[in-house]
Amino acid sequence: MKVGFVGLGHMGRAMAARLVAGGHDVTVFNRSTAKSRPLANAGARVASTAADACQGATAIFTMLADDPAVENVVFGKDGILGALAPNGIHISSSTISVDLARRLSKAHADARQRFIGAPVFGRPDAAAAGKLFVVAAGAPDAINEVQPVLDAVGQRTFNIGAAPEMACLVKLSGNFLIASVIETLGEAMALVDKGGVDRHAWLEILTSTLFSAPVYKTYGTLIADRKFEPAGFAVPLGAKDIRLALAAAESLNVPLPVANLLRDRFLRLMANGGEKLDWSAVGMLSAQDAGVTRN
Amino acid sequence: MKVGFVGLGHMGRAMAARLVAGGHDVTVFNRSTAKSRPLANAGARVASTAADACQGATAIFTMLADDPAVENVVFGKDGILGALAPNGIHISSSTISVDLARRLSKAHADARQRFIGAPVFGRPDAAAAGKLFVVAAGAPDAINEVQPVLDAVGQRTFNIGAAPEMACLVKLSGNFLIASVIETLGEAMALVDKGGVDRHAWLEILTSTLFSAPVYKTYGTLIADRKFEPAGFAVPLGAKDIRLALAAAESLNVPLPVANLLRDRFLRLMANGGEKLDWSAVGMLSAQDAGVTRN
Amino acid sequence: MKVGFVGLGHMGRAMAARLVAGGHDVTVFNRSTAKSRPLANAGARVASTAADACQGATAIFTMLADDPAVENVVFGKDGILGALAPNGIHISSSTISVDLARRLSKAHADARQRFIGAPVFGRPDAAAAGKLFVVAAGAPDAINEVQPVLDAVGQRTFNIGAAPEMACLVKLSGNFLIASVIETLGEAMALVDKGGVDRHAWLEILTSTLFSAPVYKTYGTLIADRKFEPAGFAVPLGAKDIRLALAAAESLNVPLPVANLLRDRFLRLMANGGEKLDWSAVGMLSAQDAGVTRN
Amino acid sequence: MKVGFVGLGHMGRAMAARLVAGGHDVTVFNRSTAKSRPLANAGARVASTAADACQGATAIFTMLADDPAVENVVFGKDGILGALAPNGIHISSSTISVDLARRLSKAHADARQRFIGAPVFGRPDAAAAGKLFVVAAGAPDAINEVQPVLDAVGQRTFNIGAAPEMACLVKLSGNFLIASVIETLGEAMALVDKGGVDRHAWLEILTSTLFSAPVYKTYGTLIADRKFEPAGFAVPLGAKDIRLALAAAESLNVPLPVANLLRDRFLRLMANGGEKLDWSAVGMLSAQDAGVTRN
Repeated sequence: MKVGFVGLGHMGRAMAARLVAGGHDVTVFNRSTAKSRPLANAGARVASTAADACQGATAIFTMLADDPAVENVVFGKDGILGALAPNGIHISSSTISVDLARRLSKAHADARQRFIGAPVFGRPDAAAAGKLFVVAAGAPDAINEVQPVLDAVGQRTFNIGAAPEMACLVKLSGNFLIASVIETLGEAMALVDKGGVDRHAWLEILTSTLFSAPVYKTYGTLIADRKFEPAGFAVPLGAKDIRLALAAAESLNVPLPVANLLRDRFLRLMANGGEKLDWSAVGMLSAQDAGVTRN
Repeated sequence: MKVGFVGLGHMGRAMAARLVAGGHDVTVFNRSTAKSRPLANAGARVASTAADACQGATAIFTMLADDPAVENVVFGKDGILGALAPNGIHISSSTISVDLARRLSKAHADARQRFIGAPVFGRPDAAAAGKLFVVAAGAPDAINEVQPVLDAVGQRTFNIGAAPEMACLVKLSGNFLIASVIETLGEAMALVDKGGVDRHAWLEILTSTLFSAPVYKTYGTLIADRKFEPAGFAVPLGAKDIRLALAAAESLNVPLPVANLLRDRFLRLMANGGEKLDWSAVGMLSAQDAGVTRN
Repeated sequence: MKVGFVGLGHMGRAMAARLVAGGHDVTVFNRSTAKSRPLANAGARVASTAADACQGATAIFTMLADDPAVENVVFGKDGILGALAPNGIHISSSTISVDLARRLSKAHADARQRFIGAPVFGRPDAAAAGKLFVVAAGAPDAINEVQPVLDAVGQRTFNIGAAPEMACLVKLSGNFLIASVIETLGEAMALVDKGGVDRHAWLEILTSTLFSAPVYKTYGTLIADRKFEPAGFAVPLGAKDIRLALAAAESLNVPLPVANLLRDRFLRLMANGGEKLDWSAVGMLSAQDAGVTRN
Repeated sequence: MKVGFVGLGHMGRAMAARLVAGGHDVTVFNRSTAKSRPLANAGARVASTAADACQGATAIFTMLADDPAVENVVFGKDGILGALAPNGIHISSSTISVDLARRLSKAHADARQRFIGAPVFGRPDAAAAGKLFVVAAGAPDAINEVQPVLDAVGQRTFNIGAAPEMACLVKLSGNFLIASVIETLGEAMALVDKGGVDRHAWLEILTSTLFSAPVYKTYGTLIADRKFEPAGFAVPLGAKDIRLALAAAESLNVPLPVANLLRDRFLRLMANGGEKLDWSAVGMLSAQDAGVTRN
């Protein structure tokens, strides 16, 4: 399939590489062009604008950092909206707000194009291995049509509903749950630690019994090790996702007490020099408040 | 090994049965005697008091509902403290307070007996299959000595430290984390549900990707099904465990914001007729506050 | 002084009437014109647009419900920005976001006009009596110049700083504190009520001793009486102010745990049919969660 | 009236001095006797035990730091319970738990004595001036009988109900509300401060308008001044009162979210070296979390 790909950060370039490797005809675009080179070497065409990446494409992926970045490549000069062919499909894999997803749906429909939400779960290494999980929402026939490219980036696609913004909601709910695991592990760990129990031994018990999911192992280890740099997913990104979850919740009148707590945790880190830390640093604040001094 | 076993609730009788099946010489005691019959049929001796269950025993298990029940069989008339042989080992598997664990340690030491904390993770079916996880704390030689009986009830023993109350702390921290999963699943589910996403489809995505631990599947399904009766673990028991976690945290000066939220959730359920519900009903309060009406 | 006045809700029309009574030359504008009539009768000129209300005016007041309403009369067609004379002063008395105050500052400066934030504390009856408190921020000479009209609406003006958005921040902080009083009175009242103490007798003790401020008396009585209709200040307005406070806090990286709780309280009311209630209804949620049944 | 007075801390000795000055026949007792001397000089008899202070007394006051201190002088060796005359009245002015108040009621009734709860609002200087507010609960005839001595210590007595523990509940609810003022002032002040507004100017606005109650002035000034030593009411005492409020709430199934937050605030202070600070230091934690650096 002829596809464009806009946004070549850690996740985007791994996904684009999978598309090339899967035999698709891929045109990539990234604001800073250095990141395009390895993909060009692998066989991708390099576009000079987002609009250019849409030329002749059945579908165009966007995988960008936040709402403004997506708004810019879609609505801005030389943007996707003015260039994507009639009936063309915009596959949005970025973690964006429910509100923006709604606006994109409408704008693409008005332009007689199609829009699907298709955020992914998984880190860059999973992306490189084509092992992402894709959460797709939008018109069933549109999702069907791009299934071959979704299959190239993910090990499984979950089709969650007809409204593209539902996929955002699911993605945000998932990131909220991960952040909750970080917070609650941090609280529990501060408690046992101050009570004299070895943090790593405690984590080993939990993760080999009831809490066998990888998130507990991954984040629990980071918190127990006090190892928050380099950031796999930095504090401002975590803060952004919780903010988007709360914004979605606010528009739906859904109280989310733990998300509120997380919001405050992130603000506190950012107010005290923690912008560069991994978001698992939230799990250290309980230890700090408890005056835990063991390292 | 010759062992006594006090407390034949759902968990206790399954554990005692495992001991009998493992070839140990078991004497059981329960306040209401009806529950002793199947064990008697299987070969256990039935004692008439807790003290009686200690006669000739190397070790005595207690598996009871709460602090007062344990205090009663240990310190009360015909209690364990006055009957257990010198050097005898009290294996406390109940979920009790850190404070009581400390008092029991001291009392047994004063009586030249030994005390270990050995709470378990797992539900009655795991107990029946000998698949519990045992979290043991106390003098290493005492734990060593009773390892054969711990092996009869559990698939694995984690030795967490020399102070018996550490085992309580680990058990309480684990139950706090489970309750946190219930709360955060409830919040996230209310959000996606109100946004139009099918609850069960959403849960399927989460549990087949990042949140593969059984607790997410088990409690998520109960919440999505709105099925809180009959209770596997009732609201007042959950409330008790959170109260004990908070009490331990208070004595150690450890703030626990999510545990505070959980405390309020349980109080709210109890104030509004929810005493008989499963503790997963905490996960329904978010839906209620969000005015989610879909069933 | 020749002044315009845009926005004739409960507060606005009382303030405009004070200006007329104070001998100022007042031109009023309101989207729905019926509300202008009593002011016309009292001697005000009635404008057909916001721009029209600026003609010849030294200063123009805006007193509107929210950010979009203010944005509309300033930036919209026939708006203030295009009509206010060079050096003219926009006096913003609405409770608006810090972000909008910043944008208004900049826009007016670019148009060689001046902008001051001047929100007020007090209810419509205080406005009618000229007993409001004005919190002013902006260039000192601009505030100085309009002091005569501020004196007509308020009993006292507090000059809080040179940046107009500081006045918003102070107004939002004040409304946050009022909402906090509602919440904490609600919690404490649920406690004593369930313990058998008469709510009104309890309130009498508090307000005649330590908590003599009128907010305690006013809101405590509404909560004790369970009287939330008609709304003096409706739930969605309270929700909006807390949202603005949290938005300001977020941009400054300031965690606000009690504001988060309030946000959830308002969302819960709105999700369950409480849009028309007075914001003091927040104080009833604790009673509800505590299962308090006495009326 | 012939009265005993047990407990001569800051509050107790001021109250006892008022009784002496009021012409009552007063016998005082304090564990450390040095504090009795000024009262002896003023005309009080000095007892050697709590029991001794009951000799011939119509009523005996207790004004002590916490539950254990009260339990000790009532139930302990040479305690009040064994010495107070039949029909004698124990006037409990300490801030004690609802649970202890219930146990004292029962114990005194069993001993054919009478018990009333009579905690006070006010600081030592108010006590010295006889300007306390007394919150009394118990049998009306008992309160009536001791009204002359209550009048000697307070400017007004509020009779809140027939069950003595109701007075504890009212006292605890009042202290919870004061602590809430500290927390919410701290949050709001961190917000405006970081936004560039002068803390003292802001406080002046609030306290001269809506928040004119002395608690706002007193605590707001301490927080704005960052002046938490010497402690007027130390962190552990605040922590204790919040703990008692939460314990009462728990026994009545009343969720108290702001009290939970306060509990965590106090624990955090105690875990980080804040035991000697005034409880208004709670109001500094928000500034700390917001990274406010202005002094």
